[in-house]
Amino acid sequence: MRVSLVVQKYGGSSVADAERIKRVAERIVATKREGHDVAVVVSAMGDTTDELIDLAEQIVPVPGGREFDMLLTAGERISMALLAMAINSLGYKAESFTGSQAGVLTTSVHGKARIVDVTPGRLENSIAEGNIAIVAGFQGFSKETMNITTLGRGGSDTTAVAIAAALKADVCEIYTDVDGVYTADPRIVPNAKRLESVTFEEMLELAACGAKILHLRSVEYARRHGLAMHVRSSYSAKPGTTVQGSIEELSVEQAIISGVAHDRSEVKVTVVNVPDKPGQAAAIFKEIADAEINIDMIVQNISTGGTGRTDVSFTLPATDGPTALAALKRVQERIGYTDLLYDDHVGKVSLIGAGMRSHPGVSARFFSALADAGINMEMISTSEIRISVVCRDTDLDAAVRAVHDAFQLGSDDEQAVVYGGTGR
Amino acid sequence: MRVSLVVQKYGGSSVADAERIKRVAERIVATKREGHDVAVVVSAMGDTTDELIDLAEQIVPVPGGREFDMLLTAGERISMALLAMAINSLGYKAESFTGSQAGVLTTSVHGKARIVDVTPGRLENSIAEGNIAIVAGFQGFSKETMNITTLGRGGSDTTAVAIAAALKADVCEIYTDVDGVYTADPRIVPNAKRLESVTFEEMLELAACGAKILHLRSVEYARRHGLAMHVRSSYSAKPGTTVQGSIEELSVEQAIISGVAHDRSEVKVTVVNVPDKPGQAAAIFKEIADAEINIDMIVQNISTGGTGRTDVSFTLPATDGPTALAALKRVQERIGYTDLLYDDHVGKVSLIGAGMRSHPGVSARFFSALADAGINMEMISTSEIRISVVCRDTDLDAAVRAVHDAFQLGSDDEQAVVYGGTGR
Repeated sequence: MRVSLVVQKYGGSSVADAERIKRVAERIVATKREGHDVAVVVSAMGDTTDELIDLAEQIVPVPGGREFDMLLTAGERISMALLAMAINSLGYKAESFTGSQAGVLTTSVHGKARIVDVTPGRLENSIAEGNIAIVAGFQGFSKETMNITTLGRGGSDTTAVAIAAALKADVCEIYTDVDGVYTADPRIVPNAKRLESVTFEEMLELAACGAKILHLRSVEYARRHGLAMHVRSSYSAKPGTTVQGSIEELSVEQAIISGVAHDRSEVKVTVVNVPDKPGQAAAIFKEIADAEINIDMIVQNISTGGTGRTDVSFTLPATDGPTALAALKRVQERIGYTDLLYDDHVGKVSLIGAGMRSHPGVSARFFSALADAGINMEMISTSEIRISVVCRDTDLDAAVRAVHDAFQLGSDDEQAVVYGGTGR
Repeated sequence: MRVSLVVQKYGGSSVADAERIKRVAERIVATKREGHDVAVVVSAMGDTTDELIDLAEQIVPVPGGREFDMLLTAGERISMALLAMAINSLGYKAESFTGSQAGVLTTSVHGKARIVDVTPGRLENSIAEGNIAIVAGFQGFSKETMNITTLGRGGSDTTAVAIAAALKADVCEIYTDVDGVYTADPRIVPNAKRLESVTFEEMLELAACGAKILHLRSVEYARRHGLAMHVRSSYSAKPGTTVQGSIEELSVEQAIISGVAHDRSEVKVTVVNVPDKPGQAAAIFKEIADAEINIDMIVQNISTGGTGRTDVSFTLPATDGPTALAALKRVQERIGYTDLLYDDHVGKVSLIGAGMRSHPGVSARFFSALADAGINMEMISTSEIRISVVCRDTDLDAAVRAVHDAFQLGSDDEQAVVYGGTGR
C-alpha cells in the first residue's frame, strides 16, 4: 500500500498554550504512527497575533506594510518551533519551516498577499527523511521584492490547502474549535445538525455569507486544485465534515439545502438623492472600488414622483465603512447627492443549498418563513444556490431560527426529506 | 566630505517597551540627520528571550537544537520590525532584516554558532537606497544545513561588530545601560571612573574577568578586523568609552592600570588525592575538555609527605559545574582520586592594565592591598596585562575596593599619576 500524505492544520486556539501544543503533538504523532506521512500547518498561539498588533499600535496608529508583516510572522515562528519541540520530545522527528523556507511564494502586497506558487522541495526532502514537517501558516515570501508577506486573517487555512496541493496530499485536515460544518450556528440554533459532506460551491457560499469555519480563499484554492478538505475538532475524534465535489456531480438523493448562514459584520450605506441619470451609480461604485473595498449587496430605488432623483444603498464590511464614507464625501459635489446614511445595525441571513437550482419553491418558502416571524426584509440578493436577506441586526437570530425550522434542517429530521420529501 | 557609515547596537533593555523603542528610533534618526549612513543591530525586547525560554521549558525540560533556535529568533524579529516602524513613523525610511537576510553566515552548531562570514549585499543595497537598515542581533544562518542559528547570549554585540566590519563602517557604537567602561563596577566602587579609551587587549581581559559590558567574542572580532567599538549609554549623550588600538601602540603617558574586574559566576572544583604520576592531571582535563567545558584557573599542589598523592583544583563557569562533576565521576576509578569537592562560594578579582608589563611592582602592590584588607587568596593567575585572584565570594566587594584604592583609580585622581607618577 502506498503511504498516504496527510496535511493537518491547527488554528491558534488549538495551540494556545504549552499544554494544548503537547496535545496537538500527540494527535500528529498518532497520525504518523498509523503509517502516514504528515505535514502540519500551524497558526500563531492564541492571542499572540493580537498582542503583536497591540504592540505595533503603541508605535504607530495604523500599522501596515513590510515591517508589520515582519512583526506578525514572529507569531507562527514561535508556535511552529514549540510544536516541533513537542513532537521531538515524543520521540518523533520534526522540523519547522517558515513560509519562506517552505516555498510559499506570494504576491508582494503586504497584509493581504495571495499565494502564487508553492515550491515544496525542502518540505519533500524533510518528509522523505522521515520528519514531520511543521509549516508556519499565514505567511509567505515575495520573490519580486524578497520580502516576507502575510496572507491576511484566516490565511493559515489557505496555507494548508496550498501546501497540501503542492505536496499532492491525499487530504487536507483543518482542525478547529468545532467538530464540523453545521446547518446553522449551534449557538443560535441548538438542534443544528453537522453536515457529513458539502460541495465546494456550497462551502464557498457559506463562507462568503458569514460561516467562520473555513476561510473563503482556502475553499477557492482547494476547489481549483480538486483537493478534499476535512474539517475536524482538535478536541475530539468525531468524524467532522468533508468539503469536496461539485454541485454538478450531486446525486438526486443529495440534500436540497445545506444550511443557514448569518453575518453581523456588514454595514449599510445609503447615498441619498442621487440624480437619476446614466452613469451616476457607476460613479459611486467606481469610487468605492478605487478605495479597494468590496461591496456585497446593492439596491437602487426607482426614481420617485418625478423628482429625477433616487437613493442607492449597498452593504459592505464594517471595517471598510469609514473608508467608504470618506471616499464618497470627496465626490459629493461631482455626483450631486444630498446626504449619506450609515447604518451599522443590520444583519444578513442566507440560505445555501445546491438543490435550490431545480426547486423554484425554495425562495417562496424562505420569504414566508421570515414574514411569519414578523421580520422585515430590507435588501435581497440571490445566486444559483443561495438566497440572502438583510434585516435589522436585532432580528437576525430569530431569522436564522425561522429559516432553519422552515426547511426542517434540525437534527431530528433527515436532510433528504427536507422540502416536502420529493424524493429528489 | 565622504558620508560616514555608523553601526549602532541597542540591547534588550534599550528596547524593552514601545516607549523606549520610540526613544531609540529618535536617536537613530538624529544620527541619520547628521548626514551619516546608519545600520542598526537590535536585541530582543527586554524579557522576550527569557519568556520564550520559559515557554520552551514548559514543552521540554532542556530545550535546544534547531527548533529552539528557530523559537528564540522570533524575539529579534519582533523588536527589529517595531523599531523599523518607529523610524518610518518619524518620516525616515527603514527596513529590517533577519540574520539570514542580512547575510550573517554561521557555523551550524545550534545555540552557540560562530559567525564565519557576512555577505552584506542586501544591506548595502538597502542603505544605498537611503534606508536605515535594522538587523536582528544574535542570529544567523548556516549555509551547510540551511538552518537558522543563534550565537548564544550576548551574541548581538558580535553581530554588530561583524556587520560593521562587513560594511566597512567607520565605527561600531554599542548602546547599553551604562555610559561606558569604568575602572570598576560603580555599584561596588562609587568613585569608579569612566575610561575614555581602552585597548582591545585590556577590554578582552576585562570581559574575560567578569566585566559584563561587552561580550568577549565581539571584542575579539573587532580586534581582528581593526574596528573601533564605542560603548555609550542609550539614555544620555555622554561620550562613553572607545575600545581601540593595541597595547603595543600605547604612548608612555597612557595609564598603567585600566581597571578592576570581578566575577561571581564561577565555581571551584577540587579533585582530591590524585595519584601524583605523569598524565593524571592531563587525564582530568581531557575529560573536562571532552565535555566542551572551558576551565579558567588551575592549581595543583605539590605531593605532600610522601603520600604520592596530590589535589588538583580548578575554576569554571557555574553553569558547567554539574556537567564537569558528572564527567569526572565517570572516570573516578580510572584516575584513582578519592573525592570531589564543589565550592560555589568563590569570587574572582582581577586587575587589568597594559602598563603592568613594564612595572614589576604592580603585583606586589596588588597582593599587599588584599593582605592589608585581610583577604585570603586561594588561587592566583596572571597574564602579561592581568593579575587575578580567587577569594571567598563574601570578600569579593572588599577586595575590589581595596585594589581600586591601592591603585588610586577613583575619579578624584588622574590615572596618569597612578603608581607613583614615574612619568612613564
